[in-house]
Amino acid sequence: MAHTMIGLEYLMKISHTSPSKIVLLVIDGLGGLPHPETGKTELESAEKPNLNQIARESVCGLIDPVSPGITPGSAPGHLAIFGYDPIKYNIGRGILEALGVDLELKPQDIAARGNFCTMDNKGIITDRRAGRITTEKNAQLCRLLNTKIALKGVEIRIAPVKEHRFVLILRGEGLSPELTDSDPQQVGLSPKKIQAISPQAQRTAEIANGFVSQARRLLRSAHNDIPSANMVLMRGFSRLPRIPSMAEIYQLKPAAIAIYPMYRGLARLVGMQILPAGDNITQQLKSLHRHYKDYDFFFIHFKSTDSRGEDGNFKAKVQAIEEVDNALPALLNLNPDVLIITADHSTPATLAMHSWHPVPFMLKSRWCFPDKVSKFSEPACLEGGLGRFPATEIMPLALANALKLNKFGA
Amino acid sequence: MAHTMIGLEYLMKISHTSPSKIVLLVIDGLGGLPHPETGKTELESAEKPNLNQIARESVCGLIDPVSPGITPGSAPGHLAIFGYDPIKYNIGRGILEALGVDLELKPQDIAARGNFCTMDNKGIITDRRAGRITTEKNAQLCRLLNTKIALKGVEIRIAPVKEHRFVLILRGEGLSPELTDSDPQQVGLSPKKIQAISPQAQRTAEIANGFVSQARRLLRSAHNDIPSANMVLMRGFSRLPRIPSMAEIYQLKPAAIAIYPMYRGLARLVGMQILPAGDNITQQLKSLHRHYKDYDFFFIHFKSTDSRGEDGNFKAKVQAIEEVDNALPALLNLNPDVLIITADHSTPATLAMHSWHPVPFMLKSRWCFPDKVSKFSEPACLEGGLGRFPATEIMPLALANALKLNKFGA
Repeated sequence: MAHTMIGLEYLMKISHTSPSKIVLLVIDGLGGLPHPETGKTELESAEKPNLNQIARESVCGLIDPVSPGITPGSAPGHLAIFGYDPIKYNIGRGILEALGVDLELKPQDIAARGNFCTMDNKGIITDRRAGRITTEKNAQLCRLLNTKIALKGVEIRIAPVKEHRFVLILRGEGLSPELTDSDPQQVGLSPKKIQAISPQAQRTAEIANGFVSQARRLLRSAHNDIPSANMVLMRGFSRLPRIPSMAEIYQLKPAAIAIYPMYRGLARLVGMQILPAGDNITQQLKSLHRHYKDYDFFFIHFKSTDSRGEDGNFKAKVQAIEEVDNALPALLNLNPDVLIITADHSTPATLAMHSWHPVPFMLKSRWCFPDKVSKFSEPACLEGGLGRFPATEIMPLALANALKLNKFGA
Repeated sequence: MAHTMIGLEYLMKISHTSPSKIVLLVIDGLGGLPHPETGKTELESAEKPNLNQIARESVCGLIDPVSPGITPGSAPGHLAIFGYDPIKYNIGRGILEALGVDLELKPQDIAARGNFCTMDNKGIITDRRAGRITTEKNAQLCRLLNTKIALKGVEIRIAPVKEHRFVLILRGEGLSPELTDSDPQQVGLSPKKIQAISPQAQRTAEIANGFVSQARRLLRSAHNDIPSANMVLMRGFSRLPRIPSMAEIYQLKPAAIAIYPMYRGLARLVGMQILPAGDNITQQLKSLHRHYKDYDFFFIHFKSTDSRGEDGNFKAKVQAIEEVDNALPALLNLNPDVLIITADHSTPATLAMHSWHPVPFMLKSRWCFPDKVSKFSEPACLEGGLGRFPATEIMPLALANALKLNKFGA
């Protein structure tokens, strides 16, 4: 029997400010699976003395970002860590991408995530990422589409994100985000026609399909000199959600240090200040030092563990973990009151995709009651003092350990 | 993700009477944190052969009274153990105090918890407990306030609880409990003005503030010869809640043996018969023997582990645990069908307050399926057969082990 969940409304009542600092390091896609030859996961294979030392001083556990068996996207994975029920607060991918590149959105705008991709002559997708074209080439393609595409009764804006990713904004009267994706999320299939999920989205579906067919024509024309990018795949049509800020709920002054746009967008959505992040974890931690006195909650996002996992590159994911570990002394020397290291989901290199497996978690604080876990890995965290628990319990734990929560009830 | 909760409505359908006896011993605030010098918690530091022997014959676990990260007050901590969702049944502190001192309450009465406290000349609270004045001095102060305070349109009653604690009852037409506290819950601050949370509580707020200012004047006058008690702090304005009794839900005939008033009040609220408790655990267990044949569920409350934890006195908390352990043979010789030993929350002496840490739990019965846990402590219980679980699951487990539950479904 489970209790009624401690809702955000209640946390709002018992949260209070304090001088304590909370640092949350999300090592994206950290959780893995055993390598078939060694029987060791990426985390178990990495040389990571700092992570292991922190584990010895922490209370550990395994988190379920959404629910056992459910593979989280990046948005629900992060929202859950920030304390938001990821089923209740389902953020559209398009909105996230738009926020991540600082596009100014109006409440009625529709945003969608786009990929430049490669399609063969039979209309079959052969590379969903167009060979991971450079961000510069991407910007060139977006300029082309922005200049040449015209859709009746709607203003459009196409903005580059990183590599092959872009965002489309539709602005106009009577639009609806209730649309299916054109992206089939697999190679070997054709792009799908965008369809209205509700009758009032019919016109928007026509506009969106009009965008795709004009983009296709332009990308196959002489205007485009990047032949791998000859088509677009659209997904995550969405509108700005209403979500209470972390300041409102937790009485925190939160800041994010994230290199990738989408994670900045997500952080901005929950009311975090976006700090400069530079290009790598060392620069991110320098930024942490520079701004440490000005905020009391820091979200630091490390991406390449997930990217290398998605590439199916076990060794490179191990190296990415070692890169984080190497950088950690510059975080530890700040001695934050509460340090949490975890991930938004697992991305086992053997699976080469996000997965449903629970995610290693550790929390270090003066009051954490360390368990016997002596290294940071999936099997070790299973023995941890926190057991296996939903990611939405992380924020109450963080606040409790920072002594930022009043007691509940008389 | 949590399962749909087995609600009280359902337990009501499947519970049935049986001759089995359940004894629930709550060692208040039992859970602790490691001592910085020894690395051992209060429980690990105590000599407690009886508790350890019971652990060997029990199924053990760690309970979350409310939810991970949430520090429970005494009421939610106990209500959860009794099977009531502590978020749904949120009992006001004032009501609890009033029930604990046998004040007869009418449904419309407003009750509040008061502390006599010490305030300096600048209006700053220097001791929230007025040096823990004796109950006799407290009674003298309450007589003074009862005699001298007059508030227009409302009947008032001030009754002493233990030491510095008292309860205020307001009786009259059109009152509302929707008031903020005057108690800031910290020294170094001034008492707060009581405010109406809703417009209809405006008049009650004025009455309550009138009470505080009259009490302040009287306590600083020549009528009062206890200088440390020169002010009152009020909190937990509340009204009687509606809560189904344990007899209704579980088909039990429950009784409570608690020395401290608030716990008797809580027990009475859920329909327990209040039995004499004497002054110490030995006398409580004598009372258990005397009444053993007349009831089938006994709640025994041991307080001083919590008090010594709140005092920050590690050694005294260890001794309190040893005091319980010494007394246990007088419980064990009754050989109850189900024996549960746990706590309503942790009160680590190092923190000197209630905390959010999960609480050791053990259940001994003929059918409990003992695990490998060989001593009663926080880390040992983490390895227990019940894992980490919400306290509201205790009652279904207790009833099941007492063979008092029918099967669920066909």
